[in-house]
Formats: sequence, C-alpha cells, structure tokens
Amino acid sequence: MRDDARYPPDPWGLAEQGISLDRLAQSESLFALANGHVGLRGNLDEGEPVGTSGTYLNGFYESYPLQYGERGYGFAEDGQVVVNVPDGKIIRLQVEDEPLDIHRGTLEHHERRLDFRSGVLERELRWRTASGHAVEVRTRRLVSLSLRSVAAIEYEVTALDRKVRIALQSNLQVNRARPGEGDDPRAARHLDEVLRSHLSVSENKRVVLGHTTHVSELAVASGMDHRVECDSELESLTQAEPDLGRVTMSAELQPGETMRLVKFVSYHWSSQQSVEWLRDQVDASLESALAEGFDGLLEEQREILGRYWERADIEVDGDDELQQAVRFAMFHIFQSAARNEGRAIPAKGLTGTGYDGHAFWDTESFVLPVLTFTAPDTVRHALAWRHSTLDAARARAEQLHLRGAAFPWRTIRGEECSGYWPAGTAAFHVNADIADAVRRYVMVTGDDDFEERFGCELLVETARLWESLGHHDDYGAFRIDGVTGPDEYSALVDNNVYTNLMAQRNLESAYHCTGRHPSVARRLGVDDDERERWRAAAEAMFIPFDEQAGVHPQDDSFLHHQPWDFASTPDENYPLLLHYPYFQLYRQQVIKQADLVLAMHVRGDAFTLEQKRANFDYYEPLCVRDSSLSAATQAVVAAEVGHLDLAKDYLYEASHMDIADLERNTGDGLHMASLAGAVIATVSGFGGLRDHGGRLEFRPRLPEGLERLRFGLQLRATLLRVEVTQDEATYRVERGGGVHLDHWDERVDLTAQHAATLPIPPAPDLPAPSQPPGREPGRRRPRQPIEYVPLEAQPVDDRA
Amino acid sequence: MRDDARYPPDPWGLAEQGISLDRLAQSESLFALANGHVGLRGNLDEGEPVGTSGTYLNGFYESYPLQYGERGYGFAEDGQVVVNVPDGKIIRLQVEDEPLDIHRGTLEHHERRLDFRSGVLERELRWRTASGHAVEVRTRRLVSLSLRSVAAIEYEVTALDRKVRIALQSNLQVNRARPGEGDDPRAARHLDEVLRSHLSVSENKRVVLGHTTHVSELAVASGMDHRVECDSELESLTQAEPDLGRVTMSAELQPGETMRLVKFVSYHWSSQQSVEWLRDQVDASLESALAEGFDGLLEEQREILGRYWERADIEVDGDDELQQAVRFAMFHIFQSAARNEGRAIPAKGLTGTGYDGHAFWDTESFVLPVLTFTAPDTVRHALAWRHSTLDAARARAEQLHLRGAAFPWRTIRGEECSGYWPAGTAAFHVNADIADAVRRYVMVTGDDDFEERFGCELLVETARLWESLGHHDDYGAFRIDGVTGPDEYSALVDNNVYTNLMAQRNLESAYHCTGRHPSVARRLGVDDDERERWRAAAEAMFIPFDEQAGVHPQDDSFLHHQPWDFASTPDENYPLLLHYPYFQLYRQQVIKQADLVLAMHVRGDAFTLEQKRANFDYYEPLCVRDSSLSAATQAVVAAEVGHLDLAKDYLYEASHMDIADLERNTGDGLHMASLAGAVIATVSGFGGLRDHGGRLEFRPRLPEGLERLRFGLQLRATLLRVEVTQDEATYRVERGGGVHLDHWDERVDLTAQHAATLPIPPAPDLPAPSQPPGREPGRRRPRQPIEYVPLEAQPVDDRA
Repeated sequence: MRDDARYPPDPWGLAEQGISLDRLAQSESLFALANGHVGLRGNLDEGEPVGTSGTYLNGFYESYPLQYGERGYGFAEDGQVVVNVPDGKIIRLQVEDEPLDIHRGTLEHHERRLDFRSGVLERELRWRTASGHAVEVRTRRLVSLSLRSVAAIEYEVTALDRKVRIALQSNLQVNRARPGEGDDPRAARHLDEVLRSHLSVSENKRVVLGHTTHVSELAVASGMDHRVECDSELESLTQAEPDLGRVTMSAELQPGETMRLVKFVSYHWSSQQSVEWLRDQVDASLESALAEGFDGLLEEQREILGRYWERADIEVDGDDELQQAVRFAMFHIFQSAARNEGRAIPAKGLTGTGYDGHAFWDTESFVLPVLTFTAPDTVRHALAWRHSTLDAARARAEQLHLRGAAFPWRTIRGEECSGYWPAGTAAFHVNADIADAVRRYVMVTGDDDFEERFGCELLVETARLWESLGHHDDYGAFRIDGVTGPDEYSALVDNNVYTNLMAQRNLESAYHCTGRHPSVARRLGVDDDERERWRAAAEAMFIPFDEQAGVHPQDDSFLHHQPWDFASTPDENYPLLLHYPYFQLYRQQVIKQADLVLAMHVRGDAFTLEQKRANFDYYEPLCVRDSSLSAATQAVVAAEVGHLDLAKDYLYEASHMDIADLERNTGDGLHMASLAGAVIATVSGFGGLRDHGGRLEFRPRLPEGLERLRFGLQLRATLLRVEVTQDEATYRVERGGGVHLDHWDERVDLTAQHAATLPIPPAPDLPAPSQPPGREPGRRRPRQPIEYVPLEAQPVDDRA
Repeated sequence: MRDDARYPPDPWGLAEQGISLDRLAQSESLFALANGHVGLRGNLDEGEPVGTSGTYLNGFYESYPLQYGERGYGFAEDGQVVVNVPDGKIIRLQVEDEPLDIHRGTLEHHERRLDFRSGVLERELRWRTASGHAVEVRTRRLVSLSLRSVAAIEYEVTALDRKVRIALQSNLQVNRARPGEGDDPRAARHLDEVLRSHLSVSENKRVVLGHTTHVSELAVASGMDHRVECDSELESLTQAEPDLGRVTMSAELQPGETMRLVKFVSYHWSSQQSVEWLRDQVDASLESALAEGFDGLLEEQREILGRYWERADIEVDGDDELQQAVRFAMFHIFQSAARNEGRAIPAKGLTGTGYDGHAFWDTESFVLPVLTFTAPDTVRHALAWRHSTLDAARARAEQLHLRGAAFPWRTIRGEECSGYWPAGTAAFHVNADIADAVRRYVMVTGDDDFEERFGCELLVETARLWESLGHHDDYGAFRIDGVTGPDEYSALVDNNVYTNLMAQRNLESAYHCTGRHPSVARRLGVDDDERERWRAAAEAMFIPFDEQAGVHPQDDSFLHHQPWDFASTPDENYPLLLHYPYFQLYRQQVIKQADLVLAMHVRGDAFTLEQKRANFDYYEPLCVRDSSLSAATQAVVAAEVGHLDLAKDYLYEASHMDIADLERNTGDGLHMASLAGAVIATVSGFGGLRDHGGRLEFRPRLPEGLERLRFGLQLRATLLRVEVTQDEATYRVERGGGVHLDHWDERVDLTAQHAATLPIPPAPDLPAPSQPPGREPGRRRPRQPIEYVPLEAQPVDDRA
C-alpha cells in the first residue's frame, strides 16, 4: 500500500480526489503541463488559493548579481532565475455575485486528473454558493505539442437545480513574486518586479501584452483570445492594462444549461526581436489556435502522444503503483522536452522554480539517456543547446586557466551561475556527462549530421578541458586532482573514480570521433599530436583501488576518513546539508548520492562483477540519499549485483519521489532526473540495458512480484521491443531493420520482424547490504502517513 | 640602498620629507598613532587631501548581514566592520581668508616625523598663500599611553614676513564612508551612515557628541576641548551639531608672533552604558587631560616608552635601514597593544580598515610572541580577550557539531565573520595558535593567576576541539582531516603537518596544565579519562613523511599534485589569488605562505636538522609569498638551516613590508604580523631563540654585513640581554634572578648580574635554494622605484 492514498493507481493517468490545501504546491507540480517551450503549473483555474503560481517559458530569465561574504577570482558573477511570465491560466467564475473560491460556500465535489495519453488536465467540481446556488464546472487544459506557443483551456459551467446569473472573467496577468526567501539553497530566489510593460492592446475578446525584463533585456509577448458558446444572451467587456488583460462575460443560465468558454493563450519571447514583432507572432499563433479549436488541438495532442507511447511505453505487470508511476515519469519527461528546440531541459522541467529554473548535469546523465531511446529528436535539440553555449563555456575555461570548454554547473543561458564553487564549478564531471550524452545519442541514432555539426566539437572541447585538468604524475599515471564528483558530501578531491572514468571515456570518444571525421578535426584545429595525447591520457587514467579493503575508494582519500556517526544522527537532521556544515560532511565517510555506484552503472565496463558487489556492499551503508539523484542508480546496480528486492525498493523510491513527495519539496517542481531515474531503474535495472561499447547489452532479471516488463527502444530506424518475465526475455524487432545485442554475454543478431526468446539465469542468493539507520529506501522506511483532508470537512472561511 | 628613499635612515624615528599625494594613504598608516584603545591615522591636520580618514576605537564595530550566492549550513551570518568614529584630528587654518590646503598656494617646506621614543608625530610646514602671506605651522600629535581615552594635538602657527589674520577651526566630525568597493577581498567593506546622533553639547571650547550604531547597538561619546595661547585678541565661536563639533578662533598675528592651540580629544564607548554616562566619562577624561596639559602627557609618554625600550630595544649594527625598520616595528607593535585592555589586537592594529579591522590567528602567532618577551601585560590582556569570547567559540563549535571551542578565523567581537569557509572556518589551526600563545605566555611569565583564571580553560576547550576534530584510524594513528593550514593556496586537506603538530602541542599543553591545576580541571569537568584521551591523541598524532622524496608533505596529498607552472605565470599575475581561481591554486603545488616551514619554526622540536634542510629546499621553490606572513618565517628557518644571506633578504622584506609598501596595500593599514615577523626574524632568526620546551634555546648566528645584534628578553622578573657578534654570543642578566638556557646545545645557567660569552659555530656552506621566478625576496627582486614627487613641483590646483 502506498503511504499516501491521494492518487489511486490508474494505469494511464494521475487523479486526485478532493483537494488538500496543505499540499496545493505539490499538486501544482504534479499536474503541470508543458511542451518544452511553455510550462503551466497545475494552478487552480481561479488562481487562488495557490501554492506557487507559475507560467514559464523555457530560457526566459532575469539575472541578478551574486553576492559573496568574501569574493574570489572566478566566482560566478551573476545569477539567472526563471521568470514568471503573465499568467493566462486564470478564469474566474462568479455565481450570483459570489466568487467561486474553494474556501467559500460548499465544495461538494472536486477531482482533477492528468491523462497521460491526451496530455490534458481535467477538472470537475460541483460547488454550492452560501446562498444555495449550485453549479458544475468542468475544465480541460492543455499545452499544445503541435502549436508550440499555444495553451488552451476549455471551461464549462452548468447551472444545476436553479437558474443562476454567472460572470466569467478570463485574465492574463502579471503575478508579483512573493516576498521572503528561506535558507534552503535548493529553493528559488525571488526577484521582485521583473517585468516592465511595453505594450497592452485589445481587440474584441483578445488581449496582447508586451513586457521586457530589466537586466537580461529579454522581450515577451503574451496574448489570449476566446470562443464562447452560450444559448443565453451574453454581456461582455474586454480590458487591457499594462499588467492585466481581462475579458469579462456575464450570462444567465437556466438549470441544466451550460456555458462553454475556450481560452487560447500564446507566448513568444526573444532576446533580439522587438516586442512589436513578438506581438505579431502572438496574434498569428492565436489565429492558428482559433482555427484548430480546442478539439483540433486535442486531437493532435493524442496523435503526438500516441506515437510517443508506441515507442516508449513501459508495461509493468504485477505492480499497479509502479505501472502508474513509470508512465507518469515517461509523460513528464516527454512533455518537458517535446518542443525544447534550442533550449535546455531544466532540472525541474517547466514545472516550478526550484533551483531557479537551472539545468544541471542531471539532464545529460538521467533525462537524455531515457529520451535517446524514445524521443531522440529532443536529445538532438538539448545537445544543440549545449553546443550553442560553447562560447560561454570556452570563455569560462579560459577564465579558469583551462583549455577547451568548461560547461557551467548550473545555468539557464550558458554562464556559470553556481554561487558556491566547491559544489559547482569544481564538479567538472558535467563536461564528461555532456560528452557521454553525445556519444550515446550518436551511437543510438547514427545521426552523422549531428556529429559533424555539433557532437564532434562538444567532444573535442571537453577532451581539451580534461587534458588541461589532469596531469601525468611521476609514474606516468594521469591524475585529476581537486575536483568534486557527483556526491556533494565530498568536495575538491583527488581522483574521484566517477570523474576519472567519465573523463577517460570523454577522451576516448573525442579520439574516435575525430578519427571518424578528419575534416571536422581539421576545422577544430585537432592534429595527430593532440589526439595522441588524449589517447595516452585515457590509457594512463588513474583509477585508485584499495587492495586491502578490496574496494574502489570514491577518491584518493575517501577510505582514510572517519565513518560518519550515523548512530548519533537523529532522523530530523536529514537532509544532512541543512544541519551540518560542509566541513563535516566533506571530511567523513558519508555519501549524499551514488557516486562510485553511479560509476559502476555508467562505466560498468570498468569493473568486474566481484568488484561491483564489494563496492556496493561498502558504499551502501554510507549513502544517505539526501539527493533525489541516488535511488535510481542504486536500483540499477543493486539489480545488477543481485539484490533484486532492494532494487525494487529503490525503484519505488525513485518513481515516487514526486507522487509521494518523499523529499517534501515537490512543490518547487518535479524532480525530472528522478523521474528519468525511475525509467532507468526499470529499463537498465530490471531490463538490464547497458550501452558501454558499440552494441547494446541486456542482463534482464525481475524481482519477485513483477511478472512482466515490456519496453521499447528506438535504435536508428529500428523499434526494438523487449519483454522480460521471471524466466526469460524476448527481443523483437517491431519496425525497421535488424539489430545486434548481447543477452547475458550471448550474442543475439535479430533481423527484421524476428524475435528471440532466451532464458534468464537465476538470481544469486546474497546477504542484503544495510543502509544507514533510518535511510532505508522509501518503501522500507516507516513514514508518517500524509493525511488527506477532503475540503468539505474544512471550516468555511468567509473572507471578503 | 633602499628602493624608496622617502624615509631616510634614522635610528629612532621615521621622517618624511616633502609629501607625495599618490602615497598619502601609505603615509597615513605609517604615521598612525594608537594606544590599543584609540587609533588615529596619520591624516593631515586639515583633513584633506586624504587617503583614508581614520579614527578607530578598538572593538567598536558595526555589523551587517553576509550575503552568499548559495548559502550553506553554518556559514557565517554577519560581518563586523570597524567603524570610523567622529574625527577629532581636524584642525583647519585659514590665512588671510585662504585655507591652508597643500593643493593651493605654495608649500615651501613639509616634513613629518614619527618619534619612536616619545610616540609623537611631528609636522612642520611653511606655506605661502597665493597672495603671498607666509606662515609656519608646527604640530605635534600623540595618543596618550597614560590616559587611555585621550589624544592631544599641539598646533602652532607663526606669522613670518607679514602680519596676517588667521582663523583656526578645530573640528570633531563624523566622516561619511566613501562609496565603492573593489574586488580585493583583503580590503574593507564600506558601510554607509553607520552612526546615529544622540547627543551634541558644548560648553566654552568643549564639544561632546554621542552616537550609536544601528545594528551592533554600541554607543560612543567623543569630545574635544582646547587651550589657546595667543598674545593678540581672540575671537572665537563654539558650535555643536549632531555630527559636528567646531571651535573657530580668529586672531591677527604680527610677524614672528605665534598662536598655540592645544586640542584634547577623548573617546569612550560601550555596549552597555548609556550615551549619557559615556558623555560623563568623556568630560572627566578631558578634565584630566587639561590638567596634565600637552607637556604633561608628553612626559608620561616618554616615560612609558622609555621603560618599554629599556626591555625591548633591538640594536642592529651594520645596517641602518634594518635598525630603523626593526625599531619602527617594535614601536607599532607596542602602541597597537599598550592599552588594549579586554580587546583584541587586530591584523592592522588601529592603523586602518584593512580586513575590516578583524583579528586573525596572526595576533597569537606573530604579535604575541614578540610582546610576551617585551610587554607581557599586553599579552595577558589579549588572551583574556580571547577568553572573553569563549561563549561564542563554544556556540560555534556546537553549531559545527564539534566539542570544546572553535574560535573564529576573523572577528571583532568573537563571532565568526569569515565569508568564505574553506579559507576561514576550516583553518582550525587558529585554535592551536591561541593555545600556543597561552603556553608561551605562561612559560615566560610564570603567571599562575592567568593560567588558573583564563589559560587553562583556553587550553582545555581547544584540546576538546581537537579531540573531536580528529580520529584514530584503523592503525591507531590520530588523523585530522579536511582542514586548511596556514597556506591559503591549499584548503580542506588531510593531515596538514603544521595543524597536526600544533594540535599535538595543544593537547599536550592541556594535559600538563590540567595536571598542574587539578581544581581548575575539576571546575571545567575534565576527568582522568579525558586527559588520557588528549595524551593518547597527541602521542598518536599522524605526521606524514614521504620516505621516497625525503621530505614532509605539507599534507597527505600535497606531493601528489602537479607543480605550479611558474614559467607560464607572468609577473602581473601576482598575487595569484587575484588572477587564478582557488580551484587551480588548491590542486597544484604552489604555496602562498610558509606552512610546513612555519611548522619547522614553531614546532622545530619535531624535525631533525637534516629534515629541515631537505624540507626548506623542497618548499622554497614553491612559495610565492603572496602573504605578508611568510617572509619572516622563511627568514627564521633559512637562518637556522644555514642560508644566512637569504635569511637577511627575507628579514629585509618582512621589515620593509610597510615602509617600502611592498604589497601596495599599506594604505589599508600596517601589517602588524609582518612587523612582528621582522622582530621574530631578527631575534629567532639571527638570535636563534626558540621556546619549545621548558627552557629557552639560542642558536645565534649573524649573516655577513651585520656586526652586532643586541636584544632584551623579559623572563618573569629577569631581564636577559643577549648580544651576538659574528663569532660569539654574550648572555647577561641585567635585572632580576638567574635564568637557564641552551646555547647551541650547551646548557648555560646564568645567575643574577652574571654574563656568559660563548662561541658561535661557523655557518655551513650550502647551495642556496631557489625561489619561483620573480618571487625572490624583496631586496633581490628588481622593483620599479617609487617616484617621490615633492609637492612644490606639482601644479597648483585652484579648486574652490
């Protein structure tokens, strides 16, 4: 049983019955809609009550100077924060002069459901005013996957037992940021009064606003238009103010009569175009949207998502919660990226302002691996975005006295925005993570054009960085000193195994890529001597191993440190970073998130199975998972080494990070990488997929309780379907040509329309490793149940 | 020849002939007067032109919130910055309605001289107005060593060839901070409008002002009163405004006639007393000052300084510049501490706002060792101040999840104010440095009362810190991981040798002290078990040594790192911290300041002579001396291992840090620790003094060019005079009882009035180690000569 029963299992959707005011922010994130360009949080149509009101455009940000108690050379100078653009979601209803507000009157029914196949957020409510007039409201909201700038809302209100006069107000309004800022460094910075009005025009039921940001000097135009269907006579008014567009409509509805409003919203922004031109684009987009109508947009939505699910769907038999959670993950990953053309995929997608809307390494390390096999076009776009920031990355490398490109730890536009360099700039592995995403994308898609135009340069500039970051020591070994690996509870260490292994692959990839594309290599000034240095550095890469302990140290000094005193660490002191200084975390054996274990997943080719087992057993009792980026990786490696039950528990945690709000910050936005991690834990954990060399390997094995796992992989023109049961796995080419793969070290050459069914070796019987006390995976950890209080039970607040 | 000839050699003073507007700020620091409570920068009497106007009260500060790009648990929350209190130095002269301003008219003569025996800053100038009226002005300024709150200025103006009407204005005024703040983290933060007026009263020629600070809520009263001698009739006016007191006097002087004004200023501040009470104190102090008169104060000044010089004077025969520089150092060290009762000795003394007026570890490590042998009362006060901040240090330790007390890296009032923890809080050695100052003070003075009341608790609480900071590893060794040593170009390292050796001594000192004082131990809750743990930790302290390289690594990983590429580092990239990121500095072999070499000085008992030689040779080519805390220590160890010429060059650099403005930031205040370092380099370098065990050791040896070195040491009631020549050393008890010492491993037991003359072994002939290119010691480095432009040669600026 899920400990939070608010979202009952539902194979193709997420439904909330009733509404909990305490958890509004979480539900706004879960019900967020996006298409990679526009993102709307799942705010109530009437705008209030609200956790965080959010309407975001990918890449639209404001910047502000970063302050330091003590400044140092090369510290990031400016922060960038995603901007809340004019909110076009708002539709307010007044019934017999009483505003529909779930605080008032009686909310007799309330239900929302996000449908994964149509991408629509549906809402149904029945409300009775204090004076006893009842209405039923049904709304459907979508962010179009076909018209990139467009969102649409269908709002139907029906009079129930009595005749009622209703007024609908549809707004497009600038929401002011809320004051105050907490101490949690993971939350967003609030900037006040970011948007300056430049334009406000209306025509019939259309209003278009134009704004610019103060410091980043970006322009945005936002517009709305409406279609109304109502049998009764309609009185209406359209207003346009600098920060507000509003269309008010009033009608009298007979019992059973329905008024239907369809609202179309469009957003265009630019760093170069004038507000006037952007306004033209908004007007054009609104015209196209009106032509499609809500139903037309919905039909395209179903088609696009249908094609995605055909490739990407993951079927999990035997665990309804997991089935739902994995599809929830696949849905959000797709909509965060579908139309991201030329933009990043931020850590929270477009679902909230957590981490200021920045993109980190987790996009390349978690999100892109999933999309590479299911929606490869979005990966091309995401990596082309990285490529578009190369100048900033090269400038950053130069500033740091390094060569090549140093990509930022966190950014919106490409500049380093990390205000704490030991856990930011020093985490150079982001560069190898980007390179590995390039390698994987090219390997899986065979996209030569991408490799020539973007990929090769990304590999070359990151390889140059690594060559300048490391050095050959007196014994010839290539060391990389003073960097920070994925585990943020260590910093500035020598020879972090993950970093060194990823750098090694980065150097090898650049070597091979420039070998494949000599003309690109020439264009980039790469000569044989440089290639040879990359090869030599990769070959000599130092990977520390402690013979005595029989494990890989996370870095040179890790094993010498004092083990963390878990026995004296009370539950309320997690996450540790909010209760202990970095000083203490860095100098002791305690791990925030999979680091060496992540290396064993993505660079599994560098470890023997015995090493993986010993390492996993060693690091498991040290890892507190204070990061959402850990459980999925632990699931993958647990599954590989044979701890299948543990893997399942970690998969549960990764997949329920947001649905169960395990870290209590889903309100700031969804954890895209954890969602992707849930998919990875399924496909690479129980599906056993690896992509180390030139061919795919599978070592599938299901835990008890899962009967069947079925997933698809798009490999160039081929759609490969993999079906795993307890005893055997079937590989089938559903579309396209043949494919070569390994199944448990057995070579399998599948031809078109061919299938192969192969046995799965039984799991070994291993003693399960332990976790730090109280840090067992989510399902195992006893947890306070979250009380769902239906709104009707709450006292009515008669605020004016 | 000194490369800057502005301050000609002068055995008992520092004189400036002419005035350089470019270097006003430097001269203001050099000519600063203080007594440990009040500090006046050497600003011109007329207040302008000015580098930085400064009037400081020890401990009087304002606080402000420290900002961070990304905040973390335990980051220092508030900064503290020394406040510029109302400026009572200002006396303005108007001659025939034309203001004496060195920009205007013709400055025919200008000379200032700081006298080390009287503690008086003298000024003499002859000025002719544009209309041709000439006056001679002679001023003398002192900050009283007897009346702690009082400063006095004698201002004499004499009409020369013609009769002139003059007006003198004596101000007490709040100076507004200048806007703007550079990128150099070593400079001070500027806060605007810190002082709020509470009180402003006048009576005859007396004005008293009362102010409070906004955030730190401190109160200060400042007052001035005047005595005038003039044969002519005097017109005068006294004004009192919230931020200004002013007395204006006008008289007509016949040729040759002199008007003499004596101005007395007094400051009292408190965190608890009311402004009104402080005003009473100021009025009382002014009354006392009036009773003493300028000459009375001057006489006491000479007496107090005479007693100091009798104990503390250092005679250096054979190098006039060095003689002057060492006395300059001894003078400033004394006046920074003389009346510091209950307060810290900041890094800049009270001579400027550099480092925000904070005190660091260098007080205990450099300044106090000098004062311990020459003015031990001030050391008692300085350590009692540390003791008074124990509650803050204990709270800090608790916040950091440590035991005992964690003293701040930088502070005014006791709270941690470091805005960059890897080079602040992580530099825990400050605690052992404090403990070592306690140990030395008690050893040298035998002050049992101090030990019982303050010293023992300081040792105990710091020992507790170390016990909680380190741990016994699997082999039993006691490791201290993740801390920062003195070298700020490394950070967060394991087993920094300096730190571990100092912690070892700290633990031993606490063990012995609690053994000597069982009742104090009981009061502090120390039992045998705890003492035994300290002893065991000290005994098992891990001191890394690299057998292969034959040297001590600065820390566990130092020798594995890449050597800095000095060949590719242009001169203009020094200091490195302003041109390279910490990231690069930390991960390579490059040293900002003596670290392992400092360990070899203060813990010389832990190294063999051969190790010292090998270590010195290894680290010397890596040390860039981007800190003023390095040259002196390098001088000491160079002298010990036998590089006498090099030691002399380092001594020259340490002693001329400010006189020659070697780091170009003397304008922010004097480098007190470098001044103290110059004394240490003399006494411990060429005098060979060490104080490791229970008795003093001397291994004196002079470099070529020095004929004789003579210095005194106050040891309990005994005044020991040491005289060193090229061939022999003479130890003489000048006052008090006998003393035991070692001379080059020979035990010497001196009795009262007894002297012993012993031979000095010849210096070995060693190849000199090299420094990084361009980083040779000051005297060896070619340097742009600083042009002294006499003011008369400058164009007259007729600004209104």
